[in-house]
Amino acid sequence: MNFPLAQTDAAGRLRHLVTLDGLPRALLESLLDRAAVFAAQPVKNDALRGLTVANLFGEPSTRTRASFELAALRQGADVVNFEITLSSRAKGETLLDTVYTLLAMRVDVFVIRDAEAGVQDMVARAVDGEAAVVSAGEAHLSHPTQGLLDALTVRQAKGDIGRARVAIVGDIARSRVARSAHRALATLGCAELRIVAPRAMMPAAGAFEGARRFESMEDGIAGADVVMMLRIQHERAGSGPVDLAAYHRDFGLTAARLALAAPDAIVMHPGPMNRGVEIDSEVADGPQSLIRRQVANGVAVRMAVLEALAASRRKP
Amino acid sequence: MNFPLAQTDAAGRLRHLVTLDGLPRALLESLLDRAAVFAAQPVKNDALRGLTVANLFGEPSTRTRASFELAALRQGADVVNFEITLSSRAKGETLLDTVYTLLAMRVDVFVIRDAEAGVQDMVARAVDGEAAVVSAGEAHLSHPTQGLLDALTVRQAKGDIGRARVAIVGDIARSRVARSAHRALATLGCAELRIVAPRAMMPAAGAFEGARRFESMEDGIAGADVVMMLRIQHERAGSGPVDLAAYHRDFGLTAARLALAAPDAIVMHPGPMNRGVEIDSEVADGPQSLIRRQVANGVAVRMAVLEALAASRRKP
Amino acid sequence: MNFPLAQTDAAGRLRHLVTLDGLPRALLESLLDRAAVFAAQPVKNDALRGLTVANLFGEPSTRTRASFELAALRQGADVVNFEITLSSRAKGETLLDTVYTLLAMRVDVFVIRDAEAGVQDMVARAVDGEAAVVSAGEAHLSHPTQGLLDALTVRQAKGDIGRARVAIVGDIARSRVARSAHRALATLGCAELRIVAPRAMMPAAGAFEGARRFESMEDGIAGADVVMMLRIQHERAGSGPVDLAAYHRDFGLTAARLALAAPDAIVMHPGPMNRGVEIDSEVADGPQSLIRRQVANGVAVRMAVLEALAASRRKP
Repeated sequence: MNFPLAQTDAAGRLRHLVTLDGLPRALLESLLDRAAVFAAQPVKNDALRGLTVANLFGEPSTRTRASFELAALRQGADVVNFEITLSSRAKGETLLDTVYTLLAMRVDVFVIRDAEAGVQDMVARAVDGEAAVVSAGEAHLSHPTQGLLDALTVRQAKGDIGRARVAIVGDIARSRVARSAHRALATLGCAELRIVAPRAMMPAAGAFEGARRFESMEDGIAGADVVMMLRIQHERAGSGPVDLAAYHRDFGLTAARLALAAPDAIVMHPGPMNRGVEIDSEVADGPQSLIRRQVANGVAVRMAVLEALAASRRKP
Repeated sequence: MNFPLAQTDAAGRLRHLVTLDGLPRALLESLLDRAAVFAAQPVKNDALRGLTVANLFGEPSTRTRASFELAALRQGADVVNFEITLSSRAKGETLLDTVYTLLAMRVDVFVIRDAEAGVQDMVARAVDGEAAVVSAGEAHLSHPTQGLLDALTVRQAKGDIGRARVAIVGDIARSRVARSAHRALATLGCAELRIVAPRAMMPAAGAFEGARRFESMEDGIAGADVVMMLRIQHERAGSGPVDLAAYHRDFGLTAARLALAAPDAIVMHPGPMNRGVEIDSEVADGPQSLIRRQVANGVAVRMAVLEALAASRRKP
Repeated sequence: MNFPLAQTDAAGRLRHLVTLDGLPRALLESLLDRAAVFAAQPVKNDALRGLTVANLFGEPSTRTRASFELAALRQGADVVNFEITLSSRAKGETLLDTVYTLLAMRVDVFVIRDAEAGVQDMVARAVDGEAAVVSAGEAHLSHPTQGLLDALTVRQAKGDIGRARVAIVGDIARSRVARSAHRALATLGCAELRIVAPRAMMPAAGAFEGARRFESMEDGIAGADVVMMLRIQHERAGSGPVDLAAYHRDFGLTAARLALAAPDAIVMHPGPMNRGVEIDSEVADGPQSLIRRQVANGVAVRMAVLEALAASRRKP
């Protein structure tokens, strides 16, 4: 377990997507290129006919599960859904027994969402060579398809990620969305990445390498081309004193604050939104918002990822 | 929200099916004609291939959900199921965020069942022009596909709805089934509609326009061609003193009572039945019962409705 | 209800699979032959296109439900899943109302798992001639597709069931897996069947006809060609004093004990395993283990059973 998981094969093709860390720029760009085609021409195909996709979701998530399920069904895959918390099981072999059982049923792709770190990596190592693993969210660490869809949305809107100044705002420390967006955008050569958060939500020093840090929202979004808001994690609010009114006052995206960004700045949010907390409805539904486009891009990106994994499985 | 939702387009094609109120007779007849074909020749087709149907069921309903799911799958649609109570969410925009998210994933038809009035109408207005909404049951108000399947069953059995005398018996006040059956049959020119209930279950004056009211079951079903029983809503029984034995004594459909109706009267029930309460097994399983035919017609009607919605979406 | 259910038609074709009892050897062999083809060439086909399979699972079972679901989807069937405990309903007619409702929706095959004995038989009689029933597990009595997959696994590994000495070890008394494995292997002419259990887990006298009984594991597996372990039923452990450490000491399959069997003995387990209780990981993951092969064979056997049922329904 000391070596990093090999997410690509000798020919550079995607074999798993557990994290964006270490994936080359060319691979990310080819996934975005293909996703852009799916986004523009959303037609049913049979690219995955004969393949089986298993959704193993330990955390409830209507939207992400639906997005993966539709990405698979629209390419003709057979899909089975399980609400199963791999991490809450007796550790180690029992988890793997569940995985090996599904593998023996010829599951080709495991889509896994889990609140515990390391589950996707462990499963990917276990099924390596026989099936592929895609993370649909790992603890606070990683959400690679979200990172890709965010990058696609920025590229579509701004044309060139290399010129975009992107501000990620909110509960950065506990956000897998922020980590994967940062990783995708950094790999793709984003001009400037900023993380904007109250001190209590700022990640540890050294994380988010290369990003500029701002504890003032006004400073953080000044001149930004992209304002990417994060959601307050209400389910974790019990662990700390999150005063929602104060949060909105200091870090909520209002129309007035958005005016500090570039005139053609776009607004993003991974959803689900807490309207009136991290973002005002006027902004969420306004002309600069690409929040629904992100959702559409999510299906397209997942179609591209599943297609790529299928291709690497078919041509050994 | 002041204007009624436009359920048809300029060419008269169905765009949503939230209520039967206001739909023209010709449209209902064309849906029944098409459903009759599906009922007679239940073969798998690809009419909905490439379309996505989302079932959003806030109230548990094995049978109705299965009926819609099969109606979609048998026409080649992709189907995603959600157990989601839209009405229990924070009101307004949050509900719509869920809907807009699914819309952005290119859901074409939203099938919605909810205990709260108005949810389907609100969603239909929100997605209008981009997707269609079908009600699968709205509070105590409306269950339009049930009304259509009831009308189809009457038409199949009696040939001409215009000559049928129909008695609807039971907990009328709280029954969406009764409301939609009344609306469908009235639109289709039913000869005579009767509502039969104990006073406590009789709807407010003015409701069920044109229907004759009977507080005696014997009087109510005398000479009727169709006896449509409703189920006692056990889940609401706590709100009032429903004495089941007394109910059966006064309003249960026994063989003796059925003999008061026309000799070739048919018996209907939307299910699930409370045998021994509103209906005796001898009647439910007897030769005059079309209860299972109603279920079969339910799938056929839903196939016809989905097909019509798909047609209006494809030819703008 | 006094006559046994006719599981085959006049031409000997399978109409239901509620139990292996009474099914002729030639039928079992033809199912295994066909399953072997599916196991060797797992390609998607359309053999069940236009048919509807309903999974009614009253007991939670990720693996068995997934196995049946994939067996149906991979042959092009439409599949609907229900978590529904038929036996916990008001008895008799209410259960059947649910079944008749699904039948009226043109469900072709009911796959039923239930903790109560007799449910599958009752449903099969109710839908007889209109649909087929497959048991996916009935109380402690029967699990016919498990029996078939176990037999297929033995045949694949040993070539000839007629020469195999098979020891079934564990909680025999409460095991439907043991009963169906015994029945399948006995019908197929297994050379020698042994049941091995502590006295408290030994079935009543007369059960497991023809099997030799051993209360010592060492004696029971000596020279065996197949060692089929059962799982300790933790969910039933509360009913009796199962000392897991003592159980492992006396009946756990360790590498040392396995050495008492034939040198090329195979190890089987229906899953999920309690590692360290009835079986050691060294054995479960060792070269003699065919546990994952059993899972793969499970999908293949269920494909063969569904195909056979579809054939008998199509050619009346």
